[in-house]
Amino acid sequence: MKRVAFQGELGAYSEVAASEYFNRDVIVIPKPSFSKVFDAVSDGETEYGIIPIENSLTGSIHENYDLLLEHDLVITGEIKLRIVHNLLVNSGTKLEDIKRVYSHPQAFFQCKDFLARLEGIELISIYDTAGSALRIRETGSKNEASIASEQAALDYGLEILRSGIESNHLNFTRFLILSKSLDDETDNSKTSIVFSSKNIPGALYKSLSVFALRDIDLFKIESRPIPGTPWEYMFYLDFNGDIRQDVIKRAINHLEEIASFLKVLGSYRKGEEVIGRIQERHD
Amino acid sequence: MKRVAFQGELGAYSEVAASEYFNRDVIVIPKPSFSKVFDAVSDGETEYGIIPIENSLTGSIHENYDLLLEHDLVITGEIKLRIVHNLLVNSGTKLEDIKRVYSHPQAFFQCKDFLARLEGIELISIYDTAGSALRIRETGSKNEASIASEQAALDYGLEILRSGIESNHLNFTRFLILSKSLDDETDNSKTSIVFSSKNIPGALYKSLSVFALRDIDLFKIESRPIPGTPWEYMFYLDFNGDIRQDVIKRAINHLEEIASFLKVLGSYRKGEEVIGRIQERHD
Repeated sequence: MKRVAFQGELGAYSEVAASEYFNRDVIVIPKPSFSKVFDAVSDGETEYGIIPIENSLTGSIHENYDLLLEHDLVITGEIKLRIVHNLLVNSGTKLEDIKRVYSHPQAFFQCKDFLARLEGIELISIYDTAGSALRIRETGSKNEASIASEQAALDYGLEILRSGIESNHLNFTRFLILSKSLDDETDNSKTSIVFSSKNIPGALYKSLSVFALRDIDLFKIESRPIPGTPWEYMFYLDFNGDIRQDVIKRAINHLEEIASFLKVLGSYRKGEEVIGRIQERHD
Repeated sequence: MKRVAFQGELGAYSEVAASEYFNRDVIVIPKPSFSKVFDAVSDGETEYGIIPIENSLTGSIHENYDLLLEHDLVITGEIKLRIVHNLLVNSGTKLEDIKRVYSHPQAFFQCKDFLARLEGIELISIYDTAGSALRIRETGSKNEASIASEQAALDYGLEILRSGIESNHLNFTRFLILSKSLDDETDNSKTSIVFSSKNIPGALYKSLSVFALRDIDLFKIESRPIPGTPWEYMFYLDFNGDIRQDVIKRAINHLEEIASFLKVLGSYRKGEEVIGRIQERHD
């Protein structure tokens, strides 16, 4: 079975996304940081890695954009997971007993309306949501709660006191699948690149023209600073098409005339929006 | 004297930036969050606010982009402050005594090479750098250090054990000055806007064409998600010129034909890069 590295503890949203992407036909390997996910694939410990790249409410995960630039891996897939946050407690805990809630700061932000209705509670930030579930399981406290996935409730034997507590239900996280080499070309692909433009007037406009003039649709642009050259930027672009198609090859060749640096990050089938289902573990 | 709200404790980099921008002719008012800085100006408690908008190493402060969209304030100035991080201690503490270092997570990241050489220390995240200086001052511990500004060392009576511990000295933070109305037009202005484009092919390219066709230089583009419409984005643009110039007015009118939403955030004199000087306080 294929192995996929993800950041966080078992029950993390990244694990749910990996299970959905690979139709559960996968062994998930938890890692303590995004950087270690990249290393696991680079070193051959796993065939694949999965990383979150953007959330539809809170925006891009910029650390992962920077890691894509630093590492020589390719993007071979994507999946858009609907994020459903749950209030998890040790069995028997009532809502009015809760004094402390543990979770990732982004989960607190995404559940701010629900949390505002709980009075006098303390919010304690933990690096990942599933880790916060593990933590209250370990203390066994009836004054604590965690905000995490349904999968985390199952994995750590916690009770779901409230489900769907996120303020905005149009809450999706887009995950990328990383590997050492591209999968086969599809007729429903997108391509991701990163480039910096020469310091010429209208440089970004000219860069985008190589796509517009060929009717290639853009999906996303993201800018990141270039360390050591203040106020200049790297641009990350997602656009329609596959790097193995002639029109895309010509657009990239054209962009190379304008760019001072260019790297293709991958071509991959466009991902679906899915709701994660829980899975029983059989160890 | 004018009053300026900033986020953090006295001695924060935002305060140093405010003092430099206003040539020290200013009363600084600390606020616990960026949102409260916007509120202070909106409510008339202060004439000005100051917020960090991007760092040349770590990128944009996206929360502040979102707050610019939500509030009806204008940008009336900017300043680019060279960030010099210092290791602050209670008097008599030696480097080898330090067991815990307190600071903002971004300061840890920016000083990672220096911190990697200290063995067996624990890093504890605090919401602002000056707050971490205040904290070790309060405990009086000789096993603790803070990473903060020279101004914080002066304000809290701490010793600067090491200066300039940031890994990359080309480390600038760009701050924006907020007010209720624009200052006078200058011949060295930039303008900031935010817009979303209609869902048409090549929308971003067409949006940028209104500037390129008029030889208006772009300085920065930033994209942010639109809550409730996954995978669509708001674009924040900084470009050369003043909203009171005819060519800029025409470009904005042209962009309104293409955009589904457009808001001018301000026109203001382009900021200089400065190194903050410390100031004695006279209460």
